Amino acid sequence: MTISTPSWDKNRFKLKDTQVSMKAVVTLANGGYEMLSYQDVAIPTPNDDEVLVQVLAAGVNNTEINTRLGWYSSKVTEGTEALGSNDAEQENAASESDGGWNEETPFPFVQGTDCCGRIVSVGANIDANRINERVLIRCSIRNEGWNSPENIWMASDFDGAFAQFVKIAASEVFAVESDWTDAELGTIPCAYGTAENMIHRADVSAGDTVLVAGASGGVGSAVVQLAKRRGAIVTAIVGANKVEEAAILGADRIVTRGTDLVEALGEKSMDVVIDNVAGETFGQMTQVLKRGGRYASSGAIAGPIVSLDMRNLYLKDLTLIGCTGWDEPIFPNLISYIERGEIKPLLAKTFPLQDIAQAQQEFTEKKHVGKFVLIPPALTDEQKTLFELSDD
Amino acid sequence: MTISTPSWDKNRFKLKDTQVSMKAVVTLANGGYEMLSYQDVAIPTPNDDEVLVQVLAAGVNNTEINTRLGWYSSKVTEGTEALGSNDAEQENAASESDGGWNEETPFPFVQGTDCCGRIVSVGANIDANRINERVLIRCSIRNEGWNSPENIWMASDFDGAFAQFVKIAASEVFAVESDWTDAELGTIPCAYGTAENMIHRADVSAGDTVLVAGASGGVGSAVVQLAKRRGAIVTAIVGANKVEEAAILGADRIVTRGTDLVEALGEKSMDVVIDNVAGETFGQMTQVLKRGGRYASSGAIAGPIVSLDMRNLYLKDLTLIGCTGWDEPIFPNLISYIERGEIKPLLAKTFPLQDIAQAQQEFTEKKHVGKFVLIPPALTDEQKTLFELSDD
Repeated sequence: MTISTPSWDKNRFKLKDTQVSMKAVVTLANGGYEMLSYQDVAIPTPNDDEVLVQVLAAGVNNTEINTRLGWYSSKVTEGTEALGSNDAEQENAASESDGGWNEETPFPFVQGTDCCGRIVSVGANIDANRINERVLIRCSIRNEGWNSPENIWMASDFDGAFAQFVKIAASEVFAVESDWTDAELGTIPCAYGTAENMIHRADVSAGDTVLVAGASGGVGSAVVQLAKRRGAIVTAIVGANKVEEAAILGADRIVTRGTDLVEALGEKSMDVVIDNVAGETFGQMTQVLKRGGRYASSGAIAGPIVSLDMRNLYLKDLTLIGCTGWDEPIFPNLISYIERGEIKPLLAKTFPLQDIAQAQQEFTEKKHVGKFVLIPPALTDEQKTLFELSDD
Repeated sequence: MTISTPSWDKNRFKLKDTQVSMKAVVTLANGGYEMLSYQDVAIPTPNDDEVLVQVLAAGVNNTEINTRLGWYSSKVTEGTEALGSNDAEQENAASESDGGWNEETPFPFVQGTDCCGRIVSVGANIDANRINERVLIRCSIRNEGWNSPENIWMASDFDGAFAQFVKIAASEVFAVESDWTDAELGTIPCAYGTAENMIHRADVSAGDTVLVAGASGGVGSAVVQLAKRRGAIVTAIVGANKVEEAAILGADRIVTRGTDLVEALGEKSMDVVIDNVAGETFGQMTQVLKRGGRYASSGAIAGPIVSLDMRNLYLKDLTLIGCTGWDEPIFPNLISYIERGEIKPLLAKTFPLQDIAQAQQEFTEKKHVGKFVLIPPALTDEQKTLFELSDD
């Protein structure tokens, strides 16, 4: 089944008379926190192949901030943090048609890439027994099948989880049996899916030496866990103020950001580098790779334009692997890791959904380790009645 | 069998009394053409697993010039051509321990990576019936087996083919049945092996759109042929003065160097880029790649330090593949392509071995299309007697 990108009906949030509403954060346009509007909007109606999910917990990610800021535009050369405080470049990015994750972002829309929820209603083609399943949503969707690299994303190509309800193709909704809390499950999809995808493509295996940049972040801390799960020997790079917290990640070795990696680790010491940071340290990361080494990236938080010495690339038979769309095994694997107790959540803090600006502000300050999660308000009696939900 | 790097006995070229000698070009040290010494040296003695090959034709490649100049040093930031005319940077490179292909180059030694020859004697463990086979030598050797990326090279890790004779592990010597001339066969190993290795790793398949940079060069012209052989649709980049000559390469489309690739070809128009040029055009080459595209490199003739926009890499799920050591199928494949008439040689010109400096000078001017080949002098009666060779 091909999942097509839905049309962006600009009136879709408008309430009809007597309609039961939901709370949602609508992102109005490129810009600062003032673009995050907490408001009453229409509850979406699933089509025949979709389900409606009540959002129980929604993680906070870089990608939502990047999209709001317009960071994906090629006109932007700074890292996310710098862009957030650079009005001129932000304004420039906001007017670019390539500033969104996937081409232009058609505002207004609901962001929110991570979702732990429960199914409250199903489309005509979907088994009604799925109602009440506690689920995680696969936010990266291979919309032309697994043999095509084309992909669409929840919260970029259709409305996401910063709301009380989200509708989505049933094929992307995975039941999960676990004693984790909703908030803990809400830390998983985007960060762990992105991490597992890099680890999968870089073919991390038992005994591999793996260097993880930005290891205290959402994706980085997931990489450390998932690489350790495969039996790799992990070196984690974290900020100097995170060394203690980073010990709990399970890394075999921790180096602080700013350390000369070639001096500290040695040339040709690493089989794999998993990097969501890039920036000035990129060159050192290719230097420490062994001959035949693999480098995987899903981000560039410290700056997207890097200097590459081609002699490092070709004389050492390196492979640099860009990772966005997830491969087929990634999400089912993650669900099984949770259910078998092979990974642990790393929940830094929860915020009420309406405090999203504060959550993103603290997120950008990067003083935390692990994930921030937004919790939508509990259902109203009216909403419960609409979906015939019990109180539990 | 592990093929170890032989020790570099500094006295190995010295003639003993009454010993039959051979002509060879000995590269004395990093530096200019004056370092290429055409002289009488000792004929090497194969060990038990080796054969001795009479060199019939030896191609000219960038790698020999790069190694002599010390271009592989990370201290060098210019392309080969600029380095050749920049005394200061050349001098700088010459004093660097990483200026050689594989770490430091232990001068003096015999360069020459390409060899068409015939077997004139065999070591104790090798079938004597192989004597007189016309052969091509696999110059890229996986010395710790095919599962390890470690590799050594003829003419970098042991003496090569710029001589009348070369000794080499019998496993790297492939008989070839063909009506091509020796000089034509001498165009194949390094350039076509390097080209086929990139095409193999980039998984070029029928119908793929493939962009080839430096398509009039030795490796580039081989890439065009080998990609066409697989049924790809090939766009070749050549200098403005090479457009007519380039038509014979068989490319489906030719664009001249300096053309804005994004304007001429369009963003996301190419499945694969095969690039031995790098330099300033690198960014455009990543821009024209489709989502899921592959970029393979074995060189950086226009300058090794490039600017990479990580967003191109990761948002498009690109893979950048550095290629040096050849994979197992590469050389047997090439031999079969020659024997089945699936490729044609592109011999630009032959030179006597002693005119190597002139050949390299013309090579560096890049006015030719295809390969230059050096022809060692015919055997002396004394040499023929030594190996009991007939006159034919």
